Amino acid sequence: MNQEPIGVFDSGVGGLTVTREIMRQLPEENLVYFGDTARVPYGSKSKQTIIRYSTQITNFLKTKNVKAIVIACNTASALALESIAEKVDIPVIGVVWPGAIAAAEATKTKNIGVIGTAATIKSKVYNRYLHQLNPEITVVTKACPLFAPLVEEGLVEDRVTDDIANRYLGEFKDYNVDALVLGCTHYPLLSNTIRRTLGDKIKLVNPAYETAKSLKEMLISKKILNTSGEEVHHEYYVSDMTDQFTSFADRVLPFSVDKIRVVNIEKYEQE
Amino acid sequence: MNQEPIGVFDSGVGGLTVTREIMRQLPEENLVYFGDTARVPYGSKSKQTIIRYSTQITNFLKTKNVKAIVIACNTASALALESIAEKVDIPVIGVVWPGAIAAAEATKTKNIGVIGTAATIKSKVYNRYLHQLNPEITVVTKACPLFAPLVEEGLVEDRVTDDIANRYLGEFKDYNVDALVLGCTHYPLLSNTIRRTLGDKIKLVNPAYETAKSLKEMLISKKILNTSGEEVHHEYYVSDMTDQFTSFADRVLPFSVDKIRVVNIEKYEQE
Repeated sequence: MNQEPIGVFDSGVGGLTVTREIMRQLPEENLVYFGDTARVPYGSKSKQTIIRYSTQITNFLKTKNVKAIVIACNTASALALESIAEKVDIPVIGVVWPGAIAAAEATKTKNIGVIGTAATIKSKVYNRYLHQLNPEITVVTKACPLFAPLVEEGLVEDRVTDDIANRYLGEFKDYNVDALVLGCTHYPLLSNTIRRTLGDKIKLVNPAYETAKSLKEMLISKKILNTSGEEVHHEYYVSDMTDQFTSFADRVLPFSVDKIRVVNIEKYEQE
Repeated sequence: MNQEPIGVFDSGVGGLTVTREIMRQLPEENLVYFGDTARVPYGSKSKQTIIRYSTQITNFLKTKNVKAIVIACNTASALALESIAEKVDIPVIGVVWPGAIAAAEATKTKNIGVIGTAATIKSKVYNRYLHQLNPEITVVTKACPLFAPLVEEGLVEDRVTDDIANRYLGEFKDYNVDALVLGCTHYPLLSNTIRRTLGDKIKLVNPAYETAKSLKEMLISKKILNTSGEEVHHEYYVSDMTDQFTSFADRVLPFSVDKIRVVNIEKYEQE
């Protein structure tokens, strides 16, 4: 019957966009979401710290008997997925590999752009995966640290954001890039801005959508789809109760979130 | 002789500007600095979380036998100072009270502006202190969440920062504000931008300078100035080793920082 929930985690609220895609593509699945709102953002932190935080969250999700884990955060996927996958005996999928596959399929010029947090870009994990998929691909990367704060300040359609986008993305034009991976959960909210900067022809790859697709394929292949037909439950946990989580959840999710529980995540240091 | 160090802490690197002022005004004092680089920023988090993190840091500083604690972060000063002061038997000073005193002294129009993080502004602690100092003062406050990310991205002299400053600060002109508290350690770096926006006549109050002055007065009044005449030691601890800390420290401090140690700060939950 496989009624155990799928655990989804993120450094904060951004992973709710991945959750939304999972709800759309897998409406029969129970979900447990954890947002690390007390320690957000991850994008400027070291690999060691991102692994420690991701491990604590994994330990917490295991107490919820999850049957699979989705790392909905690009930074944690880039830096902690391998370490997490080694520690648990359930499937773990991140957003980077599905995003890389979609980008490799989308490009004709074989020039792919990747934007993300400083930590994601520094990790070079998109480069590694894309070259694994096709060694002929040229990968051009750029960290865009101001994009997430601009989105969080509500400036998704604004001359300031356009100005910053021009500076961050200008060099992609020189490389004849025809596919751009939006390698941070906040960036799809800037799709209009990015299209204004780079033109309509560039394909914007949103790993959230691709990840939900990969998750579905994985659940089918492992024969762990929830086939019970019973009422579905979605649970939300955070490390800090912030107004932002509730308002973002209400904006992004198809269902209203009536209960969000706070977890002292630091307590999950040991398994 | 009072050779015990002074403990200084901040959510990250910003408190180093306060440390610099302490070094200038109190060159004979030993210092232990802690920057919570793994969990930065505090400005968007809840009071409960800021108190928990500040308590852990205080517990850590106590293991270093500090004779006094300076909370160099506006957000932690605004939300956690009272709670910390209750838990320890050494003097604790924050940046808010000294900043409020200086602003109350600087204003002639009795209209004072305060800018800071969302959490600092929401706490209304500057309003409370300023009204305590003079009930006739009108306090106009504004959260400026993009200022710190803009400074961290190096855009201290930039048309984008000017544009954002115009939006954040515009309303201060309507209130005949003649003194503005720079209520976040990053903001003094935007003094030029703020002067361009609000004119040369407005007095910009930097709590870092005022805090070092208050600290000196307190050490004198409690008779705990270091009078040993021995070589001075400055120690630096962080919760995450980030490139940013080292580069910011090198830019801000008069001495080069040759050793920075990482502390697992979550372990200091209990005293």
